[in-house]
Amino acid sequence: MKTAAEVFHLEKTDGKARAGVLKTAHGDVLTPVFMPVGTQASVKGVSPDELIEMRAPIILGNTYHLVVRPGLEVITEMGGLHKFMRWDGPILTDSGGFQVFSLAKIREVKEDGVWFSSHVDGKKFFLGPREAIQAQVTLGSDVMMAFDECPPWPCGRDRLAESLQRTLRWAKICREEQAALGTSHLLFGIGQGGDQPDLRRESLEGLREIGFDGYAIGGVSVGEPEEGMMAAIDATEPHLPADRPRYVMGMGHPDQMVRMIGKGMDMFDCVLPTRVARNGTACTAAGPASVRRPTWTRDPGPIVEGCGCYTCLRFSRAYIQHLIKAEELLGLRLISLHNLHFYLETIRQARTAILEGCWESWSRAFLERYRRGGKSKEQEK
Amino acid sequence: MKTAAEVFHLEKTDGKARAGVLKTAHGDVLTPVFMPVGTQASVKGVSPDELIEMRAPIILGNTYHLVVRPGLEVITEMGGLHKFMRWDGPILTDSGGFQVFSLAKIREVKEDGVWFSSHVDGKKFFLGPREAIQAQVTLGSDVMMAFDECPPWPCGRDRLAESLQRTLRWAKICREEQAALGTSHLLFGIGQGGDQPDLRRESLEGLREIGFDGYAIGGVSVGEPEEGMMAAIDATEPHLPADRPRYVMGMGHPDQMVRMIGKGMDMFDCVLPTRVARNGTACTAAGPASVRRPTWTRDPGPIVEGCGCYTCLRFSRAYIQHLIKAEELLGLRLISLHNLHFYLETIRQARTAILEGCWESWSRAFLERYRRGGKSKEQEK
Repeated sequence: MKTAAEVFHLEKTDGKARAGVLKTAHGDVLTPVFMPVGTQASVKGVSPDELIEMRAPIILGNTYHLVVRPGLEVITEMGGLHKFMRWDGPILTDSGGFQVFSLAKIREVKEDGVWFSSHVDGKKFFLGPREAIQAQVTLGSDVMMAFDECPPWPCGRDRLAESLQRTLRWAKICREEQAALGTSHLLFGIGQGGDQPDLRRESLEGLREIGFDGYAIGGVSVGEPEEGMMAAIDATEPHLPADRPRYVMGMGHPDQMVRMIGKGMDMFDCVLPTRVARNGTACTAAGPASVRRPTWTRDPGPIVEGCGCYTCLRFSRAYIQHLIKAEELLGLRLISLHNLHFYLETIRQARTAILEGCWESWSRAFLERYRRGGKSKEQEK
Repeated sequence: MKTAAEVFHLEKTDGKARAGVLKTAHGDVLTPVFMPVGTQASVKGVSPDELIEMRAPIILGNTYHLVVRPGLEVITEMGGLHKFMRWDGPILTDSGGFQVFSLAKIREVKEDGVWFSSHVDGKKFFLGPREAIQAQVTLGSDVMMAFDECPPWPCGRDRLAESLQRTLRWAKICREEQAALGTSHLLFGIGQGGDQPDLRRESLEGLREIGFDGYAIGGVSVGEPEEGMMAAIDATEPHLPADRPRYVMGMGHPDQMVRMIGKGMDMFDCVLPTRVARNGTACTAAGPASVRRPTWTRDPGPIVEGCGCYTCLRFSRAYIQHLIKAEELLGLRLISLHNLHFYLETIRQARTAILEGCWESWSRAFLERYRRGGKSKEQEK
């Protein structure tokens, strides 16, 4: 395992909010950071060049999806995930635990892993902590995630405790496998424990005893109400080491992301910017905006005045609305580019606010505008 | 009406094949030329920047589709079709006649036009020769097409003759409307006559009597066998003025396009390059190739070795196959970019062959390779 200083540099704190640098084999990543999601070796609707143009610092891949399709052999022969998808920046890979339990048809959960059938063609696979680490090393992941069991929500305390213990046993095997392979890829542990503060503490204490390059909060964004997520963060935060990166998995809406930065979190990923693009929703500082609004039909202005994204520098609200109504693929791409840029730019501004010591006022202003915007006349335009 | 010299410069002929220059308000277009189809103000799956990068000299729009959605008022307010879709090059617009008769629900065909219901929402519209010209002037089209009736295939001689006469009466009104509006937009007449040589001649003689900036062959690519198309071209060609551009509407496969250049045709448009991309077919000089071929699964090479398109310079067959299997939008875009580039590059090579006086050998070699490729072992790889 690398020392904290080899993995992370904490540059500045402002309240609990942190500005830092995550160090990976494919370059440094300034934190807080938003990571676009490229589940199947492609960030939906956009090209690697477009990710570079919007200054995406790191992207996600998903072990489960890539094992199922195209399979590790193909990616190995193509020289690893970076070369396969033509992305030279850092990649974080989820271990696949979440998808095994949410997407696949489970055949058998054994102590050393899970037999499951692919959601694509029913083909049988085995994935456990050892296999998940081997797979991520094969992919060439810069930041690997431990193989965890993510319990559903809602979920009783007994089930949470049982899943927590299994996740800890698997986490230990993941670390051993990483050591056995002698790899320098970073490995993050994933905390579980649902909405139970003592279980969240127990989970983190167990993970820290094993020791990881960074720590993630799992089992959030599984359908629970927003305050449940925030409670899980609050319960976990005091037990996270200050000198290592902290990643909240699968989060979230822009305002949730900003609140979590204020709670001392560093890394985020979410499918939302590209998913909502598909139903014609644009992300803005005044909340989500439907591009189908009648007032946009003849609006020559950009989605957001002053926005520096590819889309807003070129195309009108009127044209984007037309593309979405006419089901033209370009519309989906243009909104995805705008939304991803909005997430990245928001978090860049958050980082600047932390560095300049004005986190409190910046985040309060952001949250007020974001929430008020959603209800104001201005946003209905 | 403009003089022939104001519209077209015939640079060189080689046999019947012609190299020329079409002069439009948005710049010169070297012919022969392939025009990517942007029916609904977007060439499917690609951006205007990407069209510039592949050196597309001119694109198509469709009056019927744009009248139905977003409507002329919207495009007028946005400053015309060029500004609306952010394309500064020449645009040719089809008049909508073909779609009125193929897509819309016809309510009533009157001597002065057609009442129809939109295929999108059933809304009632009227489109006739006057309205089609007014619409195309409003769009800001560089090359307008006369409003024609395109008879179905197969079709009896009486019906062909009747439709031909109506198309001629409408063509005359189109010219009068163009003159009345005092517009400098080019206007092309459309010849009909199906597979009947004497009707094709009659159609062209009628059009030439009215006088147009250029001439198109309509009523092809409507389901007839390939030799029917070629017969229509052969029957029309002797009656086309040599000093004006000649456009075959809705054509075709790469080999058909090359054959038609050899028959003295200058302009082509076809949805094929983007349509076949959607089922994972790549266009190559050795014929169409499915990206799903098993041998491509682990192939690190580009779709076509030596191809200079965006896709082939960056991505492997293995990755593109993965994207198509995983239904990732990027796959569709990458194949569309390759296919459009292939069409444009093929026709650029054809032009060079004409200028260099080696049309006969170039076209024979192209056609042999294209057809042999489709059946050879090499292509099955």
